Amino acid sequence: MGKVPFDVNNTKDKKAEFSLVQVKGTWKRKLGKKASDGRVDRVSAAKIYESITDKGISWTVVSPIVFTYKVTETQNILDPSNDTLLLGHINDSQQLEDIKKSNKPLKRFLVIDQEVQKIYGPRLTEFLEANKVQYKILPLPTTEENKSMEMALEIVKEVNNFSLDRRTEPIIAIGGGVCLDIVGLAASLYRRRTPYIRVPTTLLAYIDASVGAKTGVNFANCKNKLGAYIPPTASFLDLSFIQTVPRRHISNGLAEMLKMALMKHRGLFELLEKHGHMLLDTKFQAVNNVYGCNNLQAASQATRTAIMTMLEELAPNLWEDDLNRLVDFGHLISPALEMEVLPSLLHGEAVNIDMSYMVYVSQERGLLTEEEMQRIIRCMVGLELPVWHEACTMELIQRSLQDRLKHSGGLYRMPLPVGLGQAEIFNDTSYEVLHRAYEKWCDELGMSSKHL
Amino acid sequence: MGKVPFDVNNTKDKKAEFSLVQVKGTWKRKLGKKASDGRVDRVSAAKIYESITDKGISWTVVSPIVFTYKVTETQNILDPSNDTLLLGHINDSQQLEDIKKSNKPLKRFLVIDQEVQKIYGPRLTEFLEANKVQYKILPLPTTEENKSMEMALEIVKEVNNFSLDRRTEPIIAIGGGVCLDIVGLAASLYRRRTPYIRVPTTLLAYIDASVGAKTGVNFANCKNKLGAYIPPTASFLDLSFIQTVPRRHISNGLAEMLKMALMKHRGLFELLEKHGHMLLDTKFQAVNNVYGCNNLQAASQATRTAIMTMLEELAPNLWEDDLNRLVDFGHLISPALEMEVLPSLLHGEAVNIDMSYMVYVSQERGLLTEEEMQRIIRCMVGLELPVWHEACTMELIQRSLQDRLKHSGGLYRMPLPVGLGQAEIFNDTSYEVLHRAYEKWCDELGMSSKHL
Repeated sequence: MGKVPFDVNNTKDKKAEFSLVQVKGTWKRKLGKKASDGRVDRVSAAKIYESITDKGISWTVVSPIVFTYKVTETQNILDPSNDTLLLGHINDSQQLEDIKKSNKPLKRFLVIDQEVQKIYGPRLTEFLEANKVQYKILPLPTTEENKSMEMALEIVKEVNNFSLDRRTEPIIAIGGGVCLDIVGLAASLYRRRTPYIRVPTTLLAYIDASVGAKTGVNFANCKNKLGAYIPPTASFLDLSFIQTVPRRHISNGLAEMLKMALMKHRGLFELLEKHGHMLLDTKFQAVNNVYGCNNLQAASQATRTAIMTMLEELAPNLWEDDLNRLVDFGHLISPALEMEVLPSLLHGEAVNIDMSYMVYVSQERGLLTEEEMQRIIRCMVGLELPVWHEACTMELIQRSLQDRLKHSGGLYRMPLPVGLGQAEIFNDTSYEVLHRAYEKWCDELGMSSKHL
Repeated sequence: MGKVPFDVNNTKDKKAEFSLVQVKGTWKRKLGKKASDGRVDRVSAAKIYESITDKGISWTVVSPIVFTYKVTETQNILDPSNDTLLLGHINDSQQLEDIKKSNKPLKRFLVIDQEVQKIYGPRLTEFLEANKVQYKILPLPTTEENKSMEMALEIVKEVNNFSLDRRTEPIIAIGGGVCLDIVGLAASLYRRRTPYIRVPTTLLAYIDASVGAKTGVNFANCKNKLGAYIPPTASFLDLSFIQTVPRRHISNGLAEMLKMALMKHRGLFELLEKHGHMLLDTKFQAVNNVYGCNNLQAASQATRTAIMTMLEELAPNLWEDDLNRLVDFGHLISPALEMEVLPSLLHGEAVNIDMSYMVYVSQERGLLTEEEMQRIIRCMVGLELPVWHEACTMELIQRSLQDRLKHSGGLYRMPLPVGLGQAEIFNDTSYEVLHRAYEKWCDELGMSSKHL
């Protein structure tokens, strides 16, 4: 049959690098790093490497996907004259202008936590009606126990019935972390990625779930076993939601703020040390006369710094490819503890108990002075967070660290404070140190202790 | 209470760009594009933009995630001496050496289509035993009807019970496109991303599902309504699987090859035109004496070119952010047609009917000569693909194009051949042209026509 009419191996090299250029709508590979040509419309950031061996050809595709998302503070998000909830995710000013000029009603699908709906439902409806939005509100009981794929699929089903345009009509989630996580997963699955917006209504969600890319549901009795790394298009932060959060849940959120303070920001630590109790009393609002007008400034600086430090750690590691993560502080032992005593500890409470023990480990290793350690523990107590728990046994600690080894490529990668507002990752904490720290921790903070 | 102890607004600019640098394990933002400093360990490709208005702060995170995947040809993948299936995804030669030297048995979870298991199951088991792999094989009936989230969750459940290390033990999928898509989704969800490997056993999966990033399952009666864009770590291609594929399913795969030929590669078109029938007869194998030794060369060049042209289009657009896609040729009308007559048309057959009509549209628009059009139709017939279907009515065509408008940002984005092996995207095909092309298409290729 003779020679086939062309030769695919158009290079003599055994391993070749190809750039990708688009000419009149068609992508073509070009040998070499530089691919400039007068007729080229676009050059892609992606590359294809081709390697030819006696077994055949192997292509390696290297393709960067750029994730862009916004975390935006706003005030009175449910005020009909505030268009953040509806249009705040749009960055293109021309597009924004076109939408505002157009007479076409906006269309939005909203998922809201059932309890949040009870408090804010009427105002949300009023807001949507006032803005002539074609909408559907789906209230759901987004508790930890219901954080399942079944609920995510329920959302997807309703979204599908609502028939939205996935390019221009983002799904909006309003609620705590569980709500934001489930809706994020549902949106990420629907048509392989539908934009979504996060509106946190708890302090924990405000500074934690709103900031990163993670979505998830529980599966087979494990926390967030199924999920995705797809950030929202935007998170809209309105501190006024926090006024309806119970006091214990404010402490819960403060634990994750304290985490960032201990890992990265002495100023935030000192703020929490000095004003933490006031923040608890005023619930991050400007309404309380006892403290004067600066309480809002402290509330704003605390939340901004917590978010900024979190973004610093998350942005370079959005998909958690780097296993050395300071944000894991407080999260080595707490997952097992939280599951063990469910539902008696809130997430932030379990995290704080983990951090409290780890502070003792740091001190035992000589990374913190006795005085620094005591300041941290006093700060935790001031934030009304538990600093010890009887279920946090040495056996549970060891089991958790074994599990950590397994999922962290064979290293502990233990973030530990080295001074106030600074931290490093350690892989070499010995059993003896862990044990001595545990003994001292129990002695000083345990139930029978007179320390506090 | 006085001034809070620090100022988060450490810049006078209203909009500031921050780079991210890592110093001793801690990420810090640095104002400005350039962030070089002697003490810096790493500089991230991510950026944070901060904008301060009277409403508050807004941060924009821009974070690139680089996807890398391999598409590798191999021979006799189930030969116990071929380690591609077990180790072919590892690029780091040191890591590879360490694994080979280590005595630790490899652990692999495999999902295989039930029908493929019947033919290749014993050889697969033998292969795994010979390589002392600790394994579990999960055979599943991966048909289009079963392509559901339920099946994906069944896989996840078994994976979880098997307890694999998601960093080093990829899930392996062996089967047709449906199998590869479901397993890909299950793996993408498990622990927010578990690496997986694709081993296609049909011609269609070999040149299509194996090459890209898409995973998915059907939902609410819609094709691939739920899914993700997560490429496999590697796809391993072994042409010898194709010998057990029924002849009609070879044609099915040839349709997607022809698509790439018509869009981008005249050489591939001429190869299919000249040798297509032989490829059908020999099933891409070297075994048939009638055709001599060059049939394998044609088989190899056809598949390699189909894959390479596909990779060229997919690599720069891995997450389909660009809606102008040549690979959509044949996929504007076929989804509705396929669902309408299910299960009577295979995917590639429906695609071919769509392409056949679009070729008439091209000719009607003057983009193809009559002779070019006839060559294409003859080639399709030679590949034993249907070129017309009574269910493909003008009404179905119009409905499909309306749907296209809705999901493609208000434009048709219709890929059309402009000559042999070249194409462009058109948004301005008039109803009159569509209708005239339809009439001619029915006249010449319709059931009552004497044309063929």
